[in-house]
Amino acid sequence: MKDELGSVARLIDELKKLPGIGQKSAQRIAFHLLKKSKEESQQLARTILDVKERIRFCSVCNNFTETDPCVLCTSPSRDDRVLCIIEQPQNVTSIERTGGYKGRYHVLHGALSPMEGIGPSELKLDSLLERVRKQKVEEAILATNPNVEGEATAHYLFSLLKPLGIRVTRIALGVPVGSDLELADEVTLSKALEGRREL
Amino acid sequence: MKDELGSVARLIDELKKLPGIGQKSAQRIAFHLLKKSKEESQQLARTILDVKERIRFCSVCNNFTETDPCVLCTSPSRDDRVLCIIEQPQNVTSIERTGGYKGRYHVLHGALSPMEGIGPSELKLDSLLERVRKQKVEEAILATNPNVEGEATAHYLFSLLKPLGIRVTRIALGVPVGSDLELADEVTLSKALEGRREL
Repeated sequence: MKDELGSVARLIDELKKLPGIGQKSAQRIAFHLLKKSKEESQQLARTILDVKERIRFCSVCNNFTETDPCVLCTSPSRDDRVLCIIEQPQNVTSIERTGGYKGRYHVLHGALSPMEGIGPSELKLDSLLERVRKQKVEEAILATNPNVEGEATAHYLFSLLKPLGIRVTRIALGVPVGSDLELADEVTLSKALEGRREL
Repeated sequence: MKDELGSVARLIDELKKLPGIGQKSAQRIAFHLLKKSKEESQQLARTILDVKERIRFCSVCNNFTETDPCVLCTSPSRDDRVLCIIEQPQNVTSIERTGGYKGRYHVLHGALSPMEGIGPSELKLDSLLERVRKQKVEEAILATNPNVEGEATAHYLFSLLKPLGIRVTRIALGVPVGSDLELADEVTLSKALEGRREL
């Protein structure tokens, strides 16, 4: 089977490299593409190539962008005084989707992780400090992930940013909306108790 | 965001058309591709285009193939007297993986489904009957899916093939190996009881 359908096997191998795609999903997608018209598959291939041609990093916030600086950095309607610091470009999308944030962003491209050999020099910290100084930032919101690496990074950022005399805040850790207390793990629940607010 | 990252949004839209890929997975894959080197993404795009160039249907068994007839149809080591009838090309892969089947295949490219307007004329039945007559088939194994459409198709095939004087068998329906009786649904369990075998 492998010898015969070399091109299918190669496609399955390529698809398996994608996140969240195992052998079965890769197979299913490959057979789906085989069944679809040539035009549809070509369009998928073309958009993959296209995205790599057009997208670069914003020289200000390090987010993905087609124009440099990106629209979030150049938009006049956004507040220079608030800076949200996140690990990955996709986190910008998540926060933008809330519709409630109107400040600027700074993408670190990672989190501190001694286990994986990621130290401060691997993160976009120099440009962060420069921005905080030049841009008259009044509040830095630490929106790194609520896991070990994200927490460590938040602590490290706090120690860097606090001496600059600005407000440094951390997004709330607690029980997710729409879930059930029964389903919350102990750590989340104790964070939720710890972070309780006066009504 | 959408205006700026047009090419990313387009890629996410294309990825969402794939089976089992929702908004979140599509986003994850798109950002993964953005992070990877240009060469890696190009290779994925190229294998997608490549597969559409090379693959056609086997004129004998209707399976996907790069050579016509396919290697499974031309292999001299396989038994012409046994014919396994399946719904989709990917089912060949599943059965080949068992390593226990040495006969030939016939892909129907679908199952009877009045709800979706798929009748006998939509399936590859003419060539099936012709093969059974010419190829001296002694046993037809009905390996259509164990669902309503697959069962209906198996019954229909039985009514077509039995009059030709050959053995017509159906793959066993029962509890899957490695699972737990507790987890089996009632229908499966009654099929398993119905199909019990003498030890």
